[in-house]
Amino acid sequence: MSISKNQLKTITSLSQKKYRQKYNLFIAEGVKVVKELLNSSFEVDLLFATDDFETTISSDKIIRISDVELQKISNLKSPNKVLGLFKIPDEKSLQKNGLTIALDKVNDPGNLGTIIRLCDWFGVTQLICSKETVDCYNQKVVQASMGSLTRISIKYLDLENYLKEINLPSFIADMDGENVYKSELPKEAILIMGNEANGVSDAIKKLINNKISIPRFGETQETESLNVATATAILLSEFKRNV
Amino acid sequence: MSISKNQLKTITSLSQKKYRQKYNLFIAEGVKVVKELLNSSFEVDLLFATDDFETTISSDKIIRISDVELQKISNLKSPNKVLGLFKIPDEKSLQKNGLTIALDKVNDPGNLGTIIRLCDWFGVTQLICSKETVDCYNQKVVQASMGSLTRISIKYLDLENYLKEINLPSFIADMDGENVYKSELPKEAILIMGNEANGVSDAIKKLINNKISIPRFGETQETESLNVATATAILLSEFKRNV
Repeated sequence: MSISKNQLKTITSLSQKKYRQKYNLFIAEGVKVVKELLNSSFEVDLLFATDDFETTISSDKIIRISDVELQKISNLKSPNKVLGLFKIPDEKSLQKNGLTIALDKVNDPGNLGTIIRLCDWFGVTQLICSKETVDCYNQKVVQASMGSLTRISIKYLDLENYLKEINLPSFIADMDGENVYKSELPKEAILIMGNEANGVSDAIKKLINNKISIPRFGETQETESLNVATATAILLSEFKRNV
Repeated sequence: MSISKNQLKTITSLSQKKYRQKYNLFIAEGVKVVKELLNSSFEVDLLFATDDFETTISSDKIIRISDVELQKISNLKSPNKVLGLFKIPDEKSLQKNGLTIALDKVNDPGNLGTIIRLCDWFGVTQLICSKETVDCYNQKVVQASMGSLTRISIKYLDLENYLKEINLPSFIADMDGENVYKSELPKEAILIMGNEANGVSDAIKKLINNKISIPRFGETQETESLNVATATAILLSEFKRNV
């Protein structure tokens, strides 16, 4: 068997968000990520795999292809046995307990992938994204999240409205905030991380009083601010270390 | 003026470590990173810049080129006004005070760049790298370090020998280590971070008794271990938060 022209066209189109939404599908590649998706509640649509990819899924869900064909459809530098099309699941309903991370216009897919993985590690089960945040079914996000995507409830919504309505202590990560090491951090809270270049938007800063920062220990003031994924790691660690 | 054939050849060759060592030069690109290097103790060899790059360095150190020429020599997706050749500085002598980060075979240039930036943020002035660790003058490292490279003393050496001889409390970041949140962390110490896939090598694990880990809070055991740069961020935060 091989890949039909139509399938090729679909696969290529899925690099764009509008086609992911149209077909309700996204791409995941490589043995590790695809297997994690197969073992989750995510529903597989179709797998394109070389002969050495072992799986027990029904044969109508898998198309065996050559290494050359895989190379052709893969977006990875080193394609790894399988490219899968999966259905985009319905968003889960909002939870109000525990710690929630909220992202305000985070742009970089690698950063979002890392943050999803961090949520998984630190037991944060809900991630809220402003509508301008990069799509979590962008393939770079899927690959960077390393399967953690299957375990986190991710919701895209109007962040300003959400924060207005939710009745939970909220914290903005901000360079001018209070030293996080000296802040009292509740178990149930929302931690808001901002855009890579501009931080959290002014509209949201007006809404939320609590601002926390990771102090700079180096002597020079020239150090570039911490990357948003790195800052999320440190702040999550602070929220969780005393739980 | 434009770029000579010989200059083009040199620039291209500097993507390889052996030529960086032969010419004792490395490449940095973009206004921000180049300006940080120009304002540091690093010595510029030659800049290739478009007319809109403003600088006060002497005119024999700068070659004005067109956008098309810059595009041709640049390794960035979006070239930004300038590509500079800088001299690789002599390694500084070893310090024995404060906190030192030691890297055991860290491979990924982006990870090393992020770790250099983290050292700068957290006031760690010395970074020790095993000889197998990716070269810090690799251009991807230079770009990812965002100028922090100028403020950290980075030394490549035989890590096993170094650790045998140094008389400082040393800690290995290891999945099976003691919960870092419950560990007593001294101000003067060496924190050893391992390779992306394999962690710290067995030879070094035999040498060092203290192992620390970042506990997993998520319920599932399937979460991929934290990325080495992310783990370094959290552990550095733990070492520094009570100082």
